[in-house]
Amino acid sequence: MSAPHPPPPIDSFHLYDTTLRDGSQQEGLTLSVADKLAVARLLDELGVTYIEGGWPGAVPRDTEFFARARTELELHHARLAAFGATRKAGAAVEEDEQVRALLDSGAPTITLVAKSDLRHVTGALRTDGPENLAMVRETVAHLVAAGREVVIDAEHFFDGFRADADYTASVVVEAFRAGARVVVLCDTNGGMLPHDVGEIVADLQARLADAGLAEARLGAHTHNDSGCAVANALTAVRGGISHVQGCVNGYGERTGNADLLTMLGDLQLKMGHDLVPAGTLAEATRIAHAIGEIVNMPASPRAPYVGTSAFAHKAGLHASAIRVDPDLYQHIDPRRVGNDMRMIISDMAGRASIELKGRELGFDLAGEKNLLGRLAARVKQREAEGYSYEAADASFELLLMDEMGRVPRYFDVESWRASSHQLRDGTLETEATVKLSEPGDGDGRSVALAEGNGPVNALDLALRSALRGRYPLIDEFELLDFKVRILDAHHGTDATTRVLIRTAGDGIEFQTVGVGPNMIEASWEAIADAYTYGLYKAGIAQP
Amino acid sequence: MSAPHPPPPIDSFHLYDTTLRDGSQQEGLTLSVADKLAVARLLDELGVTYIEGGWPGAVPRDTEFFARARTELELHHARLAAFGATRKAGAAVEEDEQVRALLDSGAPTITLVAKSDLRHVTGALRTDGPENLAMVRETVAHLVAAGREVVIDAEHFFDGFRADADYTASVVVEAFRAGARVVVLCDTNGGMLPHDVGEIVADLQARLADAGLAEARLGAHTHNDSGCAVANALTAVRGGISHVQGCVNGYGERTGNADLLTMLGDLQLKMGHDLVPAGTLAEATRIAHAIGEIVNMPASPRAPYVGTSAFAHKAGLHASAIRVDPDLYQHIDPRRVGNDMRMIISDMAGRASIELKGRELGFDLAGEKNLLGRLAARVKQREAEGYSYEAADASFELLLMDEMGRVPRYFDVESWRASSHQLRDGTLETEATVKLSEPGDGDGRSVALAEGNGPVNALDLALRSALRGRYPLIDEFELLDFKVRILDAHHGTDATTRVLIRTAGDGIEFQTVGVGPNMIEASWEAIADAYTYGLYKAGIAQP
Repeated sequence: MSAPHPPPPIDSFHLYDTTLRDGSQQEGLTLSVADKLAVARLLDELGVTYIEGGWPGAVPRDTEFFARARTELELHHARLAAFGATRKAGAAVEEDEQVRALLDSGAPTITLVAKSDLRHVTGALRTDGPENLAMVRETVAHLVAAGREVVIDAEHFFDGFRADADYTASVVVEAFRAGARVVVLCDTNGGMLPHDVGEIVADLQARLADAGLAEARLGAHTHNDSGCAVANALTAVRGGISHVQGCVNGYGERTGNADLLTMLGDLQLKMGHDLVPAGTLAEATRIAHAIGEIVNMPASPRAPYVGTSAFAHKAGLHASAIRVDPDLYQHIDPRRVGNDMRMIISDMAGRASIELKGRELGFDLAGEKNLLGRLAARVKQREAEGYSYEAADASFELLLMDEMGRVPRYFDVESWRASSHQLRDGTLETEATVKLSEPGDGDGRSVALAEGNGPVNALDLALRSALRGRYPLIDEFELLDFKVRILDAHHGTDATTRVLIRTAGDGIEFQTVGVGPNMIEASWEAIADAYTYGLYKAGIAQP
Repeated sequence: MSAPHPPPPIDSFHLYDTTLRDGSQQEGLTLSVADKLAVARLLDELGVTYIEGGWPGAVPRDTEFFARARTELELHHARLAAFGATRKAGAAVEEDEQVRALLDSGAPTITLVAKSDLRHVTGALRTDGPENLAMVRETVAHLVAAGREVVIDAEHFFDGFRADADYTASVVVEAFRAGARVVVLCDTNGGMLPHDVGEIVADLQARLADAGLAEARLGAHTHNDSGCAVANALTAVRGGISHVQGCVNGYGERTGNADLLTMLGDLQLKMGHDLVPAGTLAEATRIAHAIGEIVNMPASPRAPYVGTSAFAHKAGLHASAIRVDPDLYQHIDPRRVGNDMRMIISDMAGRASIELKGRELGFDLAGEKNLLGRLAARVKQREAEGYSYEAADASFELLLMDEMGRVPRYFDVESWRASSHQLRDGTLETEATVKLSEPGDGDGRSVALAEGNGPVNALDLALRSALRGRYPLIDEFELLDFKVRILDAHHGTDATTRVLIRTAGDGIEFQTVGVGPNMIEASWEAIADAYTYGLYKAGIAQP
């Protein structure tokens, strides 16, 4: 994030992503700061209007996220929003530390949760209606005076409106009068049905018109507890709102938030709202799956638009007719969202995409029919074994060079050993040995021993140590990221493991992959590939 | 199935399950006849109106299902429906083998798929509009004359109505005039949005009234390709239809059919349609999960109403208020569908949620201010180190017992070692040793060596081997799932690792967690906790 972006044009529809905040409330989902930055980059690539990054000041990881975003996150489409609460009851907004942390985050947009159900004001905040209104008014005014755009999440709006429409509507009016740009109607408990939403939004719109706020922008934030999160948001859009909040892959507490990409598909392809450029909509499938990998919770195969099964046909009844006219059997052309009629993730590596990938890496394979066929078959076979080249460009390039008979070889591995030993006094010893020999006719050998925090760390250190004498450049490389994924979890501790490693050095950054039933072996493969690739890219001569 | 049941009262709303037919179109879902019988029994227990068993005559397993159902399936609430197609184009209905197989199935209700989109009539059936109408008319009349109740699934109804409303409506009218009891409006491609459905149903109703069929019963069969399957059905219900079709757990081709239990919850608890007795509605959660086990495709934790996360709360923001008034934070009382509110222990959790969690586990901590304070501090500290108790109830319970001074101890660990060794010929050797001693004053020792596919697998096998002599029950426990997460990926191979293990045995299933910079050590912790917890829950005496 460099300088704050100008707000999107006032008439544009807002697609507001809250994967990094409300999505992370999902059971089993925990995001590191690096994960959050990676997800934010993908969301920006998709072209969402807002990325809600978290709650600075309340969650230490989120404070760090906003701090690092200032230098590490360059957004091209999206604005960053910090989430927080209105000031404490009975206190001055200027002295509220939580409010100060929101300003300190540097986010150009601040989204405040405000109670809009009187029962929650008295029961949870333990204050009264007028003080809650003052909290909304003063916090919004304070942030607007500091030059920030303010979005209000009217918590429990729909339940509150049903119980006491006058009070709930007064919170919305108060927020707009104090300078809020958008007030978002939240179905916090997720229990609404579309006709409820339609009636309540119409009632509120009439009240806003009476208050001279007919032009005010409303939003919807829905949850899926009645199975209607997306439909509720679409109904609100039909009722005139122009800002929807959701999470990629429908992540979120309980049954999840409205699925952002389902709403995007419905709104853009069926309701005529141009939320993102058609070109980036065609990246939706890739982005949904990439985010699933980062947060380690895969997109559902049955997800609308982007699921691997979303356009897969099994019914024999249809099979022959589909060939004649596929459009009679699918609700949209799957290519519009980057999906495919029979897409299976491991099948994505057909010849055409391998050719494209090769071109990206600087290899012109257009005329190489045989090579392309062999590569496609090998990728398919290795993906079936558990490799994933989608996220491991460097390993793919090594595979390509291997198939062309010119894979770089800087060292041959004679043997390695890694062991962990917990002693009687509870201390843990971990060590690894690595024995390398010179490739080809040379007779140079190199052996090294290293201790480490774990067996993979010890192996990594031993390999570096064994390579350092001949290739001093090795110390330039740093392993940035290390991801382990158990592929067939049902086999317990005896399962296939995939290890993805991200490495930086000598001005480049790349990923490698290793697979095996033994996590140490899979890690070794990814590490050895990483150093081979790094030395090759640095132009180091092979022995 | 004994004698055919009388049709349900004409004014009752139909809940029509098609899990055994359309649900089995889902990728990866294959049902044996025994599976189908078991699912049908559960559906009957739930009290659905119809169970569509399959397509006798077209699918051999389905023919067998109906044959066995006659003697093996005693239904108390539901009627069995056989699915099939209208007669072939240009042939006599009396000679159509497929139609004969429907009669031979013995099912009291026959559901016929009929083309209602003229483009499919010409493109897929390769016949013309009038012949298609004759196929509908003659097949319905033939089956009604044979004493069967007939339901028509008007395939591609919504797409057809948009393209040629007159023709599509004429199929519906023809079916009713020929004696069909219900005509079901199918969104076969799943692309509709609720407002589309609302408009088209209203238009059709007006046409039916003009044709003197104002009282005819319509149904809805929806798919989730736009993420609106349930909402589309509910919108049709608001428009006057009184028969909905869906599948348990939303199974089905592509993105799945409308989730039957979500519709049931919405219709019964929110829209006032009494579809099943309140007592059986409270079995919905159990039945959803039991069916998930039978078809080997578990219910999504995020499923509305019945998912394991559907009423789980993580946000610390809510926990204290939830204790005061749970109804302010959940859209329905989860007990109405047999589910339960569950607190997730996470770094956002304070004393209130720990107290609630303790109550769930059978510990009354309400008066224990000091203990709660110590536990909250310890959970917070351990979660900062990387532990995650939200998915590890068993480890939380052990922590709670430890804080109360009564954690179970079945073995003390003297030492362990795990090593992997890649030999010169490329083969990999992995082995582990474990040395245990008896807790307390006993002097029993136990040592074991095991080989494994990886160091964790070897350690697991060695620990089991060392425990087996004293605790033979150990072989009852199986590690079902093994998840590894690298927490601070920026540290490369020198990062903190969290391991989550799910274990089953002796009738229970539970999760444990381990954390450490060494993945082997983290795994060891989770495995040792799992066996300790399992032995404790099985009531095994400590030495």
